[in-house]
Amino acid sequence: MAFEYPIYIGMSSVDRAGVLFYPELFRHAHDAYEAFMAGLGHDLAGLLDAGELALPIAHAEADYLQPLRHGDKARVRISVSRLGHTSFCISAEFVGLSGRTCARVATVHVCIHRAGADTCPLPDLLRERLADT
Amino acid sequence: MAFEYPIYIGMSSVDRAGVLFYPELFRHAHDAYEAFMAGLGHDLAGLLDAGELALPIAHAEADYLQPLRHGDKARVRISVSRLGHTSFCISAEFVGLSGRTCARVATVHVCIHRAGADTCPLPDLLRERLADT
Amino acid sequence: MAFEYPIYIGMSSVDRAGVLFYPELFRHAHDAYEAFMAGLGHDLAGLLDAGELALPIAHAEADYLQPLRHGDKARVRISVSRLGHTSFCISAEFVGLSGRTCARVATVHVCIHRAGADTCPLPDLLRERLADT
Amino acid sequence: MAFEYPIYIGMSSVDRAGVLFYPELFRHAHDAYEAFMAGLGHDLAGLLDAGELALPIAHAEADYLQPLRHGDKARVRISVSRLGHTSFCISAEFVGLSGRTCARVATVHVCIHRAGADTCPLPDLLRERLADT
Repeated sequence: MAFEYPIYIGMSSVDRAGVLFYPELFRHAHDAYEAFMAGLGHDLAGLLDAGELALPIAHAEADYLQPLRHGDKARVRISVSRLGHTSFCISAEFVGLSGRTCARVATVHVCIHRAGADTCPLPDLLRERLADT
Repeated sequence: MAFEYPIYIGMSSVDRAGVLFYPELFRHAHDAYEAFMAGLGHDLAGLLDAGELALPIAHAEADYLQPLRHGDKARVRISVSRLGHTSFCISAEFVGLSGRTCARVATVHVCIHRAGADTCPLPDLLRERLADT
Repeated sequence: MAFEYPIYIGMSSVDRAGVLFYPELFRHAHDAYEAFMAGLGHDLAGLLDAGELALPIAHAEADYLQPLRHGDKARVRISVSRLGHTSFCISAEFVGLSGRTCARVATVHVCIHRAGADTCPLPDLLRERLADT
Repeated sequence: MAFEYPIYIGMSSVDRAGVLFYPELFRHAHDAYEAFMAGLGHDLAGLLDAGELALPIAHAEADYLQPLRHGDKARVRISVSRLGHTSFCISAEFVGLSGRTCARVATVHVCIHRAGADTCPLPDLLRERLADT
């Protein structure tokens, strides 16, 4: 069962054509990713409060297939598309009410020590939970 | 019964101190206001699609009483604080999990014809529904 | 001579009516305020890097007098409207190419110790420089 | 000579680690692209005011090579990386003060009729000007 996160396309997300302003897709994808991680028991607020590790994004991309318009509702399906030693990839698929995929976001997250910014292995518990999704 | 809208303070809303970046409070207040209006049967997307009227904001203000931090959950309580002939005022109170008010937003919404931008009376049905809240 | 900061109203700032989305006014005001502070020799990045003090905003308000539209250029005139012992107020006036004031933002900034979040006196040098503007 | 657009990484663009929040890179890239297009004589505000055509983004991607931090200045170098019959690709390279590339954004822009949203050929004048860059 994929994790799903509901979104509403409000005024704050659309451009003057009434269509999602394209950077806003990444914002919604990040909101969904945070909820996904919290659901795994790894909320990012707690991870960053702890202060040792961070999971910055090294690459992000999006395909815009169907316009998301002001007033639209959609679900964001989050899945782990790759799980590496020091990084993982998240796929966010935006599905409209009709069931059609409107947009896709893919992001690469790298595990680093906050002091120094060196890459480091994913914590075992996080890796296990990502593997179980 | 006041209308309430749940929010989560995600990474997208906080500044480098981990606290809500102050313009983001208005964004959350607007999201809550849109949900409030949709609940009254006056969703803004439909209103703007219809093309005749708009409800631009002439004044906005906010008090920041307690920090809203990354990872916090809150409810936004929306109410109509004034109902005039051509305008109305919305109050958005941000209440944390402890029940304490963390922030307040007040906005003044003016009804205009989109062509010409002249002020005009609020539609009767909208006024009645705002009065009933 | 007031400090002035030029802005351009791009796609990222407008709503579906092609007019500035109202929380974006605060974002532009903050960008102008940061440039103003840097010009005084108190850039906020450095202040926050130093780690002891912060200047969170306790109150913010805006009047929207004339629409700022996609493609408009404006200048933001920053001035110190009140200078207290532990706080100060910034006024940001948005002036269009015609010389007409389109919008005004006022913000109240409170000086706090980052650890503990207690209010504290403004540093002398900062106060002197704010007083000299 | 590549078109360059200066940016400052302000509080509004950074996350709680003091580093650019990743969707903000796309926002800065879009601001730079709008300035690039205006410099060619094709400002997007005018194009959209005219009402017939739009240039929505079908794909966007970004590589984050070096952190952009609060207080950093950078230049965004815009170039046309592909010019097709009904679409074009824009490359935005973010170069720090040291001359090092910190990030790259690539976007695919498709020409459509606003009524109907069908793909259509790029206007000749726009194509010529894009080809001359």
